[in-house]
Amino acid sequence: MKSTSSNIAAARAEASTAPVDAALRERARRVVPGGMWGHLNAAALPSGYPQFFARSEGCHLWDVDGREYVDLMCSWGPILLGHHHRGVDDAYARQAALGACMNGPAPVMVELAEQLVGQIAHADWALFQKNGTDATTTCVTVARAGTGRRKILVARGAYHGAVPWCSPSLVGVTSEDRAHLIYFDYNDVESVKAAVQQAEGDLAAILVSAFRHDLGRDQEAPTLAFAQAVRAAATAADAALIVDDVRAGFRLHPGGSWETVGVRPDLSAFSKSIANGYPLAAVTGNDRFREAASKLYVTGSFWCEAPPMAAALVTQRTLVAEQAIAHMVAMGQRLRDGLATLARQSGIGLRQSGPVQMPMVLFDDDADGHKGRTFCNAALSAGAYFHPRHNMFLSAAHQPEDIDRALSAAAAGFEALARARPGH
Amino acid sequence: MKSTSSNIAAARAEASTAPVDAALRERARRVVPGGMWGHLNAAALPSGYPQFFARSEGCHLWDVDGREYVDLMCSWGPILLGHHHRGVDDAYARQAALGACMNGPAPVMVELAEQLVGQIAHADWALFQKNGTDATTTCVTVARAGTGRRKILVARGAYHGAVPWCSPSLVGVTSEDRAHLIYFDYNDVESVKAAVQQAEGDLAAILVSAFRHDLGRDQEAPTLAFAQAVRAAATAADAALIVDDVRAGFRLHPGGSWETVGVRPDLSAFSKSIANGYPLAAVTGNDRFREAASKLYVTGSFWCEAPPMAAALVTQRTLVAEQAIAHMVAMGQRLRDGLATLARQSGIGLRQSGPVQMPMVLFDDDADGHKGRTFCNAALSAGAYFHPRHNMFLSAAHQPEDIDRALSAAAAGFEALARARPGH
Repeated sequence: MKSTSSNIAAARAEASTAPVDAALRERARRVVPGGMWGHLNAAALPSGYPQFFARSEGCHLWDVDGREYVDLMCSWGPILLGHHHRGVDDAYARQAALGACMNGPAPVMVELAEQLVGQIAHADWALFQKNGTDATTTCVTVARAGTGRRKILVARGAYHGAVPWCSPSLVGVTSEDRAHLIYFDYNDVESVKAAVQQAEGDLAAILVSAFRHDLGRDQEAPTLAFAQAVRAAATAADAALIVDDVRAGFRLHPGGSWETVGVRPDLSAFSKSIANGYPLAAVTGNDRFREAASKLYVTGSFWCEAPPMAAALVTQRTLVAEQAIAHMVAMGQRLRDGLATLARQSGIGLRQSGPVQMPMVLFDDDADGHKGRTFCNAALSAGAYFHPRHNMFLSAAHQPEDIDRALSAAAAGFEALARARPGH
Repeated sequence: MKSTSSNIAAARAEASTAPVDAALRERARRVVPGGMWGHLNAAALPSGYPQFFARSEGCHLWDVDGREYVDLMCSWGPILLGHHHRGVDDAYARQAALGACMNGPAPVMVELAEQLVGQIAHADWALFQKNGTDATTTCVTVARAGTGRRKILVARGAYHGAVPWCSPSLVGVTSEDRAHLIYFDYNDVESVKAAVQQAEGDLAAILVSAFRHDLGRDQEAPTLAFAQAVRAAATAADAALIVDDVRAGFRLHPGGSWETVGVRPDLSAFSKSIANGYPLAAVTGNDRFREAASKLYVTGSFWCEAPPMAAALVTQRTLVAEQAIAHMVAMGQRLRDGLATLARQSGIGLRQSGPVQMPMVLFDDDADGHKGRTFCNAALSAGAYFHPRHNMFLSAAHQPEDIDRALSAAAAGFEALARARPGH
């Protein structure tokens, strides 16, 4: 935590350069605990970052003080085709003009379930929710219902949501909330075997992220050996293999992220980008777990809201028809190559990991994150919204000129790092 | 469960009178476990009820086969001012045109938090989510964080959401999910005292519904003695009194439902009607729990989506400015009086309970629910959407002629019951 005097200094600096944001933060401090909560809390970002946003278009964002940014976060994932995608927004509006939240679903729910069953390789059925956490929690509950067993194997440090059974924080959490979790290490086959042993015949599911995307560390694709090992272990125990595809879903492969390694889960959790920013989540499953899923009581007041489903249908069809993933990969490669060149030119050690369309950018010798913050702050001032510790996201709206603009901003980041170098 | 042959008979009857709905159900059965899930599953309703809806306007709904209904469910609560309320929809559209799901909230988040803090009697702050279950779960987690204690007192049979710690179903639930729940009976002060005893110094919160609205039984307002007893017990233990206002919120009192009994909670959960059908939930709290709330990590990809917040702001302002609750009470009284007259005329024992704007209609000597289903089915055919076992909801869009039309449909329901009477 910052000291009070540096808090005051930061607030003064903010007020002089971003007066609207500063005034909103001051009002928010009175009526929202801590001024903001969760993953969108700007307190976790370098001090120059805005908390409040005025508008968005394509891959561009404007904060409340009128500063424009090339957006490399895409709202932490949801924006897959760009803000205000015409086709998606039109589909939303057409359904909204008919009916949104009614006494039952609209026909579009069936169309969307059919679309996902046709598109997601392992899927025989789909269920819809609102939050990614709804989807991961539903997967775990379906697995327990379908196996009559309790233990869930999860990778240490993986993020699967923000409720007591899985939140990265233990504040307000009891030990019973996690009584049946057993931990292994991502990509460590031996640790999976040990965890299965520990479950002692009570194994309900193995829950894995699409790839390793833990906060503040290099990303890792699943090794083929690991993916095959968790599949084999789940199959041997007649337990569920669950892929948490909330973060990666629809950016790696339209058929589910593990199509890239050729391994199929029994259950998958999707959300974030499924409807290009409209609130929706989905669980897809195979026939092994269909009956269990039909016995569950899971629901929410807005889970059948029809317009986000119409938006999802067009988002998914557009993703496939326009080969949006290939475009994101091309843009991601352009960004990765450009950043690598800038790092080489400035002699600063940079690590880029994970899929290029979900960039993670970390600096060597940066245990306290100071380099990352310095870089991001300078890049932000130069007009690009990077994140210092979390993976980023590209969209189908990013064009070469946007990437080049982000690279120009990154050059300012490298200059700031070079200036801060000892002996400079 | 119905037998297979009666399922087939019902499917045939459905196909002949509602071919579009029947065809959609058939498609849904292939791609959705059980064909539908949760509280909107028409399998829990009499067989004539539609599963799928085409459109909505004001207090009217049209199913996919073109049949129109006066809507007495209001989407199970969310529709407070009527479907497609111009002012609310315009506010949603104006914010959506600027930005929806961005890298941080829009200014409207602060305006809405200020509105709720000004409007909700006990509130010093607000946090926003998507589902009612998000709000009740957050309340419980804040209470544990703020007290360092674990036990949550809940009323037997009360509904507080659909995740393992609170779901009405035990399918896929482990005993640890409910390890720290202690049960009492709503409106039974002695049972509250016994539950507090049982918590033995580990009491984090007492969680109560705004009134007793359990499925399939007469509703009960909280007695003053009960409300004061749970308040006193929570205060004595320095624990949280949580009112789950998800279902009743904004239909009884704009300042929170327990303003009607003059007792203030520490934390409240709102959702459903907060934004007239747009997906949003809120936790409000007092300063006793502000710091605890600021330490929690709770979040969701869409929790800061700005347009539903803009919709909520106008919904709440309209509710107060147009005295919408008084209007709903007048319409509810008209419905209750009319149903009582019809029941008297037909000599059929009818019980109506709870606030008139949230009607619960149950028949005497109807343990198997057959009378309720017969009544509702006939009323549905005559153009009104009643529910046989769950409380219903009125909106500000209901006008005397809509209530009278619902009463004409109810008359058909009473006639069907009279025809079915033994000895008829």
